[in-house]
Amino acid sequence: MKRLILLRHGQSEWNLENRFTGWTDVELSEKGRLEAAEAGHKILKAGLHPRFFVTSYLKRAIHTLEIAADVMDLNWVPVIKDWHLNERHYGALQGLNKADTAVKYGDEQVKIWRRSFDVRPPELTLDDDRSPAKDARYSMLPSSALPLTESLKDTIKRVDACWEEVIAPKLMVYDTVLVAAHGNSLRALVKNLLNISDEDIVNLEIPTGSPWLFEMDDRLNVVSNRYI
Amino acid sequence: MKRLILLRHGQSEWNLENRFTGWTDVELSEKGRLEAAEAGHKILKAGLHPRFFVTSYLKRAIHTLEIAADVMDLNWVPVIKDWHLNERHYGALQGLNKADTAVKYGDEQVKIWRRSFDVRPPELTLDDDRSPAKDARYSMLPSSALPLTESLKDTIKRVDACWEEVIAPKLMVYDTVLVAAHGNSLRALVKNLLNISDEDIVNLEIPTGSPWLFEMDDRLNVVSNRYI
Repeated sequence: MKRLILLRHGQSEWNLENRFTGWTDVELSEKGRLEAAEAGHKILKAGLHPRFFVTSYLKRAIHTLEIAADVMDLNWVPVIKDWHLNERHYGALQGLNKADTAVKYGDEQVKIWRRSFDVRPPELTLDDDRSPAKDARYSMLPSSALPLTESLKDTIKRVDACWEEVIAPKLMVYDTVLVAAHGNSLRALVKNLLNISDEDIVNLEIPTGSPWLFEMDDRLNVVSNRYI
Repeated sequence: MKRLILLRHGQSEWNLENRFTGWTDVELSEKGRLEAAEAGHKILKAGLHPRFFVTSYLKRAIHTLEIAADVMDLNWVPVIKDWHLNERHYGALQGLNKADTAVKYGDEQVKIWRRSFDVRPPELTLDDDRSPAKDARYSMLPSSALPLTESLKDTIKRVDACWEEVIAPKLMVYDTVLVAAHGNSLRALVKNLLNISDEDIVNLEIPTGSPWLFEMDDRLNVVSNRYI
């Protein structure tokens, strides 16, 4: 039996401020840190023993993992940080207040950007200070790999690369893998694990700080799933 | 120019209690956490940009790294945790109070165990609860790889494996590598970097929380070194 645990990071400072975050590297709020610790307790209580960690390049996910690892006394577990697991890139909306954006563009347009499968928010320009090309953490990647905006469809495509190259191979070696990531990058994983349609995936809400356990056979076919 | 930064973890709870620690996975003290943050500030202030992290399987080193990474805003930097960088294994002395041990075995014997190059403290038995064979983190290693006690010479031999297989190859790819580890595993690295004799290495004291910078040419020959 293989076990994959998906964990969405807790509340961040920009969730509190109601701003579009995307790839902006904001910190967990105090509530978010508590949610992370609680998630660690839930995994412990369920008797699970993660032996490999995967997370994104963003500190709200990394800290969620580190806090949960502290609670589980699993600091030593190997970890891969993979930018493919980053939150969906929100383009030029990143940093904007969601209410202000609704006033400026209209509720309907904002809803389309947030809830459609393949519509992208306005692009960042390459020379925008928010551009990934200006961020040292992405300096070893070709600019062709770096998004200036993304639809959920785009996010899913890159998260697939993490599944193929990191998560699935690690599951073949380690029986229990814990992935700490973001609402949309986890949607991408769940879409493929549970064969969810393009129409339905946009409405799937994954709660923060609630570990979602997928049990799989040795060829990684899902046999059961539940929140723990 | 290649740069290797060595960082010894800050004060642990057992340093405070004056106990032999070795592979026991004790937490940093509050002072140790402050030392780790200070080390992050020193690396920042020196204008260095670590792009790869290496640490041990022990939380006092892992937390030192995580705290320094927080200060440097480098949470995203990839990390390898390698048991070869663990502190020297102190055998059956692990957990004992140092003063009590001196009373029991005599000052001279304790000094020999602590300050000789190739004398090992008494071995743990395989079924001792402190045996690495009973610890899940080492379950993927053959028992032949796991020490029941170590001399400094033994520690150096296994740390060499981390240099050859992890640190040196990563330095060839990433210009600046930060290693957060322990007094004796860092002695092992420094012995080879600076060609220190068996006699002299036992007296080398590496201060906690003080990043030690080694600058190297592209074939990893050391051209300068200093505390920053």
